[in-house]
Amino acid sequence: MQRLSTSQADFDARLKALLAFETAQDPAVDAAVAAICDDVKARGDAAVVEYTNRFDRMSAPDMAALTLSRDELAAAHARLDAAVRDALEVAAARVRRYHERQLASSWSYQEEDGTLLGQQVTALDRVGIYVPGGKAAYPSSVLMNAMPAKVAGVGEIVMVVPTPNGEKNDLVLAAAYIAGVDTVFTIGGAQAVAALAYGTETVPQVDKITGPGNAYVAAAKRRVFGVVGIDMVAGPSEILVVCDGQTDPDWIAMDLFSQAEHDEIAQAILLAPSEAYLDAVAASIAKLLPTMPRRDIIEASLTNRGALIAVKDLDEACAIANYIAPEHLELSVAEPEAWLPKLRHAGAIFMGRFTSESLGDYCAGPNHVLPTSRTARFASPLGVYDFQKRTSLIRVSEAGAQTLGRVASLLAHGEGLTAHARSAELRLKD
Amino acid sequence: MQRLSTSQADFDARLKALLAFETAQDPAVDAAVAAICDDVKARGDAAVVEYTNRFDRMSAPDMAALTLSRDELAAAHARLDAAVRDALEVAAARVRRYHERQLASSWSYQEEDGTLLGQQVTALDRVGIYVPGGKAAYPSSVLMNAMPAKVAGVGEIVMVVPTPNGEKNDLVLAAAYIAGVDTVFTIGGAQAVAALAYGTETVPQVDKITGPGNAYVAAAKRRVFGVVGIDMVAGPSEILVVCDGQTDPDWIAMDLFSQAEHDEIAQAILLAPSEAYLDAVAASIAKLLPTMPRRDIIEASLTNRGALIAVKDLDEACAIANYIAPEHLELSVAEPEAWLPKLRHAGAIFMGRFTSESLGDYCAGPNHVLPTSRTARFASPLGVYDFQKRTSLIRVSEAGAQTLGRVASLLAHGEGLTAHARSAELRLKD
Repeated sequence: MQRLSTSQADFDARLKALLAFETAQDPAVDAAVAAICDDVKARGDAAVVEYTNRFDRMSAPDMAALTLSRDELAAAHARLDAAVRDALEVAAARVRRYHERQLASSWSYQEEDGTLLGQQVTALDRVGIYVPGGKAAYPSSVLMNAMPAKVAGVGEIVMVVPTPNGEKNDLVLAAAYIAGVDTVFTIGGAQAVAALAYGTETVPQVDKITGPGNAYVAAAKRRVFGVVGIDMVAGPSEILVVCDGQTDPDWIAMDLFSQAEHDEIAQAILLAPSEAYLDAVAASIAKLLPTMPRRDIIEASLTNRGALIAVKDLDEACAIANYIAPEHLELSVAEPEAWLPKLRHAGAIFMGRFTSESLGDYCAGPNHVLPTSRTARFASPLGVYDFQKRTSLIRVSEAGAQTLGRVASLLAHGEGLTAHARSAELRLKD
Repeated sequence: MQRLSTSQADFDARLKALLAFETAQDPAVDAAVAAICDDVKARGDAAVVEYTNRFDRMSAPDMAALTLSRDELAAAHARLDAAVRDALEVAAARVRRYHERQLASSWSYQEEDGTLLGQQVTALDRVGIYVPGGKAAYPSSVLMNAMPAKVAGVGEIVMVVPTPNGEKNDLVLAAAYIAGVDTVFTIGGAQAVAALAYGTETVPQVDKITGPGNAYVAAAKRRVFGVVGIDMVAGPSEILVVCDGQTDPDWIAMDLFSQAEHDEIAQAILLAPSEAYLDAVAASIAKLLPTMPRRDIIEASLTNRGALIAVKDLDEACAIANYIAPEHLELSVAEPEAWLPKLRHAGAIFMGRFTSESLGDYCAGPNHVLPTSRTARFASPLGVYDFQKRTSLIRVSEAGAQTLGRVASLLAHGEGLTAHARSAELRLKD
């Protein structure tokens, strides 16, 4: 694991190299995805069934065999161990409560001459949620994608989840049941994205697709963007821990592990104003790593992309955090609130020594779908606002048309758009 | 211009054909754009200057020659005709006032055990605004893109606008001055998008790029999406007029023209529950068309993509409007408010006979950058919310870590993520 210090003359270049991650769009993947999307658009269900049987090693005769009803989700929910089911219910209730705070409302105001201006806020009619299959099929991600849509008032939630070799995950289906998903199709990859975007005989066309996936899924989402809405194209997961050197180093080591265990390309970085503290965390890492079931993944991630960085002080740590704009920012310091005004870019901030990222991942309430790869500079956590949209409302009164009409006419003529000008002028009384 | 009626047996198919618009991604454009983007990323200013000189027929020696300061914008502003300058100022003030209503604020709440949850709302640091050059350089678009960013509190606004043959547009530069744009580069095309996305020696890297452009600009925006944020990839402009048959047919004809004059592929559609009224509007169109300076464009647009459609009643008109999800929806009826609850999908609704779309385009206050091509199903007008982003705040108290830790531990073990579980368990007291 790299050791850096901001006192190094070439620190900025080293930091840039550490963060560099090539998310190049692979032309071969793009071409394969384009062919699959076109085929699904043209042949519908037949194409989806063929690709699913081929890529997921299945032998479904038709889309009906790849469709799960609410009853089947309910059965998976009933089969769960009671303690796990309760935990899922607690998490869902907390996620729902938090997201209810995000609901936007319609608004308008009236001007003196009777002109009314505002925005009407409405929910999307139907959304599709992509849930990765196999090892990375996480019930928590089902909750995090579906609950904001449900809270927004989306009319219908369609979920797709590939089931390689036909193996279904009861936890994932139970989470879909709890979150209020209406239909599940056991399909994945670019073919699932295309089916949701264009619709098939069986799969209804949705208005937006959210949820993470592999390179093919990401390329397909980028391709259908505009036909439907999409959320961000997610990169590898990241955590940046800022610590004042007073948190138990075992806690911090485990927090870094909890990010690193996702993926060999996940990134875990610690900033602290003390070389001695970094030594202590390094010792904790060496001590705890052998005890972890996913130690190979953790070690690869920490070696490839991890770093322990000595900073001058916490002010400097905040400046670096803003540059990194991390997905997860753990503020493991005595008075976390004091530093908030200095932090401008992060997906989520986990404040105080007791707030491990994992609490937020599962059940604190906020969404765990967060902007990665420095996109927190401009993007937000997945939320209810992703499933509502706005329509501008403009009602110009007869009196308002007299004053606004003259302004519009002048500007329209200035742009050479005579019909625009005449359209306003026709409403003038004199 | 097509005449349709919902009483036709094949109406649904005809409507679908009318709306069909192939926004296929052209592989040749994509390849050219990829090469330009890579070149700008590698060679910075030198590449931008070369492409600008080639595509815009200029001979700039360096980027300094393609850079305009606030002083030069102020000079353009001072040169304007006083009436036009006043009109721009009035429009800017109204746009500012409306958008101030969209400002989101940070929020949080505390639970009984001291756990705090919320979201911190911050502005983007720096954004880029793309303004098309030549004939389609509209000062109103400068206001509509820059004002929401300014209201959001964006730190720096960088504008790019190509100046083919070196011809600058004083109105556009004056609008940039009024809107508070910090720097203008007279560059365009994929090279301008790449410069904003990656940064060069002279052009600062931005966090988000908004604004319309041609196929190369759209392809470049799609390509850099993820490196920076982008707004929607816009399609041709559209208006859907719903009229009860009581508005002066000349007014409606001119409203249709005001959309059609933008572009041969713009779309203007009228729905009315009366064949006689559609006849009257057709007569107005025939009478007024010869008087329009842009009659060739208007005629091509109306012939290619326009339609007069007879509906059974206004309820049916609302259902069709929801299917079309138009960019602009003119509700030219006696009591427009009564129909709002039935309208779910539109970029903006222009309510009542006096509210011509052109009033909204210039100066009513709401944004004229609106979702096109049925994307109002999931997208919103450009707004302050596009220039603010959110960071989740989570501060779990020691007591909260005990209850949440147990839930997180159960779920993490269920997902096979042991480090996540251990990270929560380390914070348990027993």
